[in-house]
Amino acid sequence: MSMSFEHTTLGQRVLFGTGQAAEHLTAELDRLGATRPMVIAGELERALAEQATAKITPALWWDEVIQHVPVEVAERARAAAARESVDVVVSVGGGSTTGLAKAIALTTGLPVIAVPTTYAGSEATDVWGLTEDRTKTTGTDPNVLPATVVYDAELSKTLPVGLSVASGLNGMAHCVDSLWAPRTDPINQALALEGARALARSLRGIVADADDMDAREQALYGCYLAAVSFAGAGSGLHHKICHVLGGTFDLPHAQTHATVLPYVLELNAPAVPELAGRLATALGGEPSTDDAAGAAVAALRELYDAVQAPSRLADYGFTTDGIGEAVGRIVAAAPASNPVPVTKQNITGLLCAALTGDRATVTV
Amino acid sequence: MSMSFEHTTLGQRVLFGTGQAAEHLTAELDRLGATRPMVIAGELERALAEQATAKITPALWWDEVIQHVPVEVAERARAAAARESVDVVVSVGGGSTTGLAKAIALTTGLPVIAVPTTYAGSEATDVWGLTEDRTKTTGTDPNVLPATVVYDAELSKTLPVGLSVASGLNGMAHCVDSLWAPRTDPINQALALEGARALARSLRGIVADADDMDAREQALYGCYLAAVSFAGAGSGLHHKICHVLGGTFDLPHAQTHATVLPYVLELNAPAVPELAGRLATALGGEPSTDDAAGAAVAALRELYDAVQAPSRLADYGFTTDGIGEAVGRIVAAAPASNPVPVTKQNITGLLCAALTGDRATVTV
Repeated sequence: MSMSFEHTTLGQRVLFGTGQAAEHLTAELDRLGATRPMVIAGELERALAEQATAKITPALWWDEVIQHVPVEVAERARAAAARESVDVVVSVGGGSTTGLAKAIALTTGLPVIAVPTTYAGSEATDVWGLTEDRTKTTGTDPNVLPATVVYDAELSKTLPVGLSVASGLNGMAHCVDSLWAPRTDPINQALALEGARALARSLRGIVADADDMDAREQALYGCYLAAVSFAGAGSGLHHKICHVLGGTFDLPHAQTHATVLPYVLELNAPAVPELAGRLATALGGEPSTDDAAGAAVAALRELYDAVQAPSRLADYGFTTDGIGEAVGRIVAAAPASNPVPVTKQNITGLLCAALTGDRATVTV
Repeated sequence: MSMSFEHTTLGQRVLFGTGQAAEHLTAELDRLGATRPMVIAGELERALAEQATAKITPALWWDEVIQHVPVEVAERARAAAARESVDVVVSVGGGSTTGLAKAIALTTGLPVIAVPTTYAGSEATDVWGLTEDRTKTTGTDPNVLPATVVYDAELSKTLPVGLSVASGLNGMAHCVDSLWAPRTDPINQALALEGARALARSLRGIVADADDMDAREQALYGCYLAAVSFAGAGSGLHHKICHVLGGTFDLPHAQTHATVLPYVLELNAPAVPELAGRLATALGGEPSTDDAAGAAVAALRELYDAVQAPSRLADYGFTTDGIGEAVGRIVAAAPASNPVPVTKQNITGLLCAALTGDRATVTV
């Protein structure tokens, strides 16, 4: 089987250490020669941001952080950065906070240091998003990739267990979907499998003990790799399905991703047995030489049971009435490169099973 | 076990495809907006270089390529590049060719596109080297990292089997040593294990059939990851040992690396059982839950037997007379972070065993 691919590795530094954010941030400012940092943190993250920036002197604090980055917020923040002669943007928070920092970098070219407090993963990509007139525009630009990411599990330890599981499984969906997404390649696959390995271990640990710092570290690390591999590989079938369920039927993001994932794996795994076998091993399952696909699905199901993951779309308002329309939209949007040809029949089977949490084998 | 690390990911594009070098090179010149490429290729690689550059118009051909990049050669090449208003340097060849391109980039800032024809790996690092008055100086600089690497297994298919195995096992040594080298981290370890997986598969394939293009592709891919992980993790115990054996005793590079590797693995693996288990799996061995270290060593030995790897330092001129001095130098140079404390006793045992190819367990 011949290998042919184009892979772009994004250059970035990662400083990883529990309790070390303040120290790492100081070192990075020194390295960049920056002296006038703008610190972005929403009101809810103010305490975490003060902890992370304890050893630097912000030239500007910015706390107007709004989901999906409204363009007018970005413009106010850019103007403030210019007024205060800011020379680096430090974001402390989740995806919306990182997103605002990226919006500033997009037009100013200022370097960004991202200090994530959730498992969103935006810090590892060169994707920006801005919302104007209720329409979100996204794009990629080398300027918006944070120069450095500072990971400190202390800053994520207050994330509730349920949210940690949902967010971690969203990362898991990035990893699994990256195995067969349109631009995937062996490098993205290897990083995705390493991310899946870390996330499986992490979520079991967080559910057993919310203060297990090793598990919190594995979650940050796994979601970082999930973002790296997803940014490289693009959206596969799983993300197309969830995009339809979220966009057209308004189902909740994280729960939808979590619920749908095992069914997509069940559909695709038989067509990629080697990757399925490696995924089974990464998830801590028993490898099987004669049914690698079954082993991968079983390992994911076992993890789901252990962390009490969402399992039925019916719990989130989806009904049989929606199946027909959803199937049409999904089949139209499905990547042509999906390892199993996507048909009305197999997507109908998949949605019916996901609706009720049926674990019988999906019809291919 | 807490995670703490600094990881710098070097930003680079990789275009991988058999028979696609000429096409990929054209696309990259377009992307960079470059129109006056300097093509560097030694006389022996001239035919390969003409094949790879068939669709571009070189502004300058340069064929003075000498091992270890003498400074006067670099200066002549830089002057020629300036005279011809070159805007990109394209190297087609092995480590010395890539090395000269890097030397030009170091002072001129010109972008480099590397087209490797061997498994040297220099194309994936920001390390440069120059030799003046018989002394080699090395350093790292962001300018010397090739912007793009074009891998085309057609260009490496004439590499003889014996040289392919030696060079591939040199890559394997980079992968295995990266598991415990001083700056290692989970990302380097994951990339190193993926490299080991590709190399094990590749070398078996090339030995079975020198024209197996899938195997040639896996070798290029595996050696690329070997270089990436080694550049990140630095030199571990294995490389310190080989540096002494090569530098002080003038043993041949590739054969020394190949011979020594299993003994270093045997020494270190019991102290890193989880990594050893993953390595065993990567090498295609039988995983073992109660003796992961033994499984890793057995898998590497099995690969060595399959590819008829070098196995005795005695075959390359090393004798018991050298052991005392070698041990002293190795113990002095060994990284403090090696997972097993390095002692005169265990290095003596290791060298005695490697001398004769003894497979009894090394005394720790």
